[in-house]
Amino acid sequence: MPEDTIEAPAIEGFAAALVRQVRAQDTHGHWETKSDGYLLTPYILDKEARRAIPIIGDPDPDTLWRLELFYGALCLEIERRTKRMVQPMMKMSHEGFGRMVLIAGRLVVVNKSLRDVHRFGFDSLEKLNSEAEKLITQASDMIGKFPEVADY
Amino acid sequence: MPEDTIEAPAIEGFAAALVRQVRAQDTHGHWETKSDGYLLTPYILDKEARRAIPIIGDPDPDTLWRLELFYGALCLEIERRTKRMVQPMMKMSHEGFGRMVLIAGRLVVVNKSLRDVHRFGFDSLEKLNSEAEKLITQASDMIGKFPEVADY
Repeated sequence: MPEDTIEAPAIEGFAAALVRQVRAQDTHGHWETKSDGYLLTPYILDKEARRAIPIIGDPDPDTLWRLELFYGALCLEIERRTKRMVQPMMKMSHEGFGRMVLIAGRLVVVNKSLRDVHRFGFDSLEKLNSEAEKLITQASDMIGKFPEVADY
Repeated sequence: MPEDTIEAPAIEGFAAALVRQVRAQDTHGHWETKSDGYLLTPYILDKEARRAIPIIGDPDPDTLWRLELFYGALCLEIERRTKRMVQPMMKMSHEGFGRMVLIAGRLVVVNKSLRDVHRFGFDSLEKLNSEAEKLITQASDMIGKFPEVADY
């Protein structure tokens, strides 16, 4: 058994959808032998690991890539559940500050200020899933409240 | 009279608001002696001038800067008229294609696909003003239709 699959826990919920998005980027098949848990490793940062990352200058391109994949997977999951097309738009202003919006029709279904993007990550897989579920619920609620704007 | 002020026509309407935004970027006072018309010159491109600009590769940073100023000034103008804070978000995907949204609260008041951004410009000052008025009217109409989303 290769080392990187030894501790692989069952990947469930939104995390499984995120893994599918990560794998969709793997056009050369480099990650075919990697476990789902291994691919999610960079998303899991405990407090200490987070604090160890300096927040000086602009965030690492890999971190931005992970952030965009996370919100891209969120859009697909919101789409799957609400049957509305959802598009992400990100604005990074400077030094890890920015804004992410997910848009359905003319409705901003998720509006998120980003800060310390250098340290983007979650305490645990459970935290990643619960944070994602919170945002998906927010999005569904907004669409439920303003369907005519989402369908505009 | 310096050459660049000879033909200066009266700058009215949205164009005057745009000039204020351009001048607000002039932190070193380089443009103090320049006329309003001179500062708007790069925004005016007739069909021939537009066709002469190659649409290969990514747009010129100056062009992107002008585009962002144009939509930034639009936001301020919509704010002034509707009393709602409006924020622009731009996504440039590749080779001059992209999307610009202007957002008030949770409402996308202007949604614009961008293409051939390399050639961003207007046939004339009148065209610049009428295009801006069209977008401002669209935004006001959206806010009038969905005020609870704009105020969310």
